[in-house]
Amino acid sequence: MAQKIITEPLTKTNFQDFGEVIDTGGDPDMLINQGVCERYHDRAKIDVGPDGKVGLSLFNSEPRSLPLVLKMMERHPDGSQAFIPMSTNGFLVIVANDKNNKPGAPKAFVSAPGQAINFFKGTWHGVLTPLSEPGLFAVIDRIGKSQNLEEFFFEVPYIVDTV
Amino acid sequence: MAQKIITEPLTKTNFQDFGEVIDTGGDPDMLINQGVCERYHDRAKIDVGPDGKVGLSLFNSEPRSLPLVLKMMERHPDGSQAFIPMSTNGFLVIVANDKNNKPGAPKAFVSAPGQAINFFKGTWHGVLTPLSEPGLFAVIDRIGKSQNLEEFFFEVPYIVDTV
Repeated sequence: MAQKIITEPLTKTNFQDFGEVIDTGGDPDMLINQGVCERYHDRAKIDVGPDGKVGLSLFNSEPRSLPLVLKMMERHPDGSQAFIPMSTNGFLVIVANDKNNKPGAPKAFVSAPGQAINFFKGTWHGVLTPLSEPGLFAVIDRIGKSQNLEEFFFEVPYIVDTV
Repeated sequence: MAQKIITEPLTKTNFQDFGEVIDTGGDPDMLINQGVCERYHDRAKIDVGPDGKVGLSLFNSEPRSLPLVLKMMERHPDGSQAFIPMSTNGFLVIVANDKNNKPGAPKAFVSAPGQAINFFKGTWHGVLTPLSEPGLFAVIDRIGKSQNLEEFFFEVPYIVDTV
C-alpha cells in the first residue's frame, strides 16, 4: 500500500540539508536606492561545476493538486537548481536524502508567498510542482554538455497530501 | 522645464539594444516532466566578467507611482543584471543608450505580467521600480570585489508618465 507523506510549511531549518530557502526573513543585508529598497544579498550557492555556465530559463508548468501521486524523483549531479516563482503562489517542494544512490524517504514542503528555493547540487527532488495558476517560474541552473539528470522511479508510488 | 518620457509596453524588439525580455512568448524550447512543463531555455546573456561569480539576491522595493520624477540613472560596468518579478505585477523599466559616458535620452517601458528582464553589462538604467505591492524581485547579478556601479544625476530631471 502506498505510503503517505504529509506536507509541512517550508522553512530554512527543515530545508537546510537540501538547499536554500530564499526569502525576506530576517534583516536585509543592505538598503539601496536611497533607502527605498532592501537587498537580501547573494542568498544561494549557485554551483554549475567547473565546465558549466549559469543559465536563466523559464518553466511554465501545469498546476497539480493534492493528494498527489509521487512516482518519480530526480537529481542533477552536475549543478544546483533554483526555482523562483513569478507569482505570489506557494508551490510544492519534494526532496529526499540520498540512500545508496536512490532517494530515501521523501519529505514534502509547501512554500509561502515570496519564497524561492535553490536545490544543492545532487539533491533528489520532485519535478517543479505549482499548486495553482500561473505555474510560471524562473529557473537558475547549469547549462552544459553533460546529461545532468538522473531519474528514479519508485516501485510503489507515494501519496503526498496535507493530512 | 522637465522633459516628459511617455511609457511604452515592453517588448523584445524595443528592448533589444538594452537587454533581454524573458517571457513565454513564442514556442518553448522543450517540453519536460512528461510533457506537463514548458522550458524556455537559457534566455539571458548572464555576464559577470572574468573574476565575478553569479549571485542570486532578493530586492524588496517600495512601489512608485506615475508620474515619476527621474533624477538619476545607473549602470554596472562589470556585469549584467536580471530583474525577475516574484509577482504577476508589471513594473517600470527605464533605460538609455550611452552618449559620451552619460545616459542619452531615456526610454521608459512597462512590463506585462510574466516578463522578466536582463540588462546587458554596462546598460544605463533606472533603479528597480515596481508600480504595485509586492515590490519583490529576484536579482541575478555579479558578485565581486569591484564597485560595479556608476551613477549619473541629471541637471534637469525627467518626468515619466503614461500620457
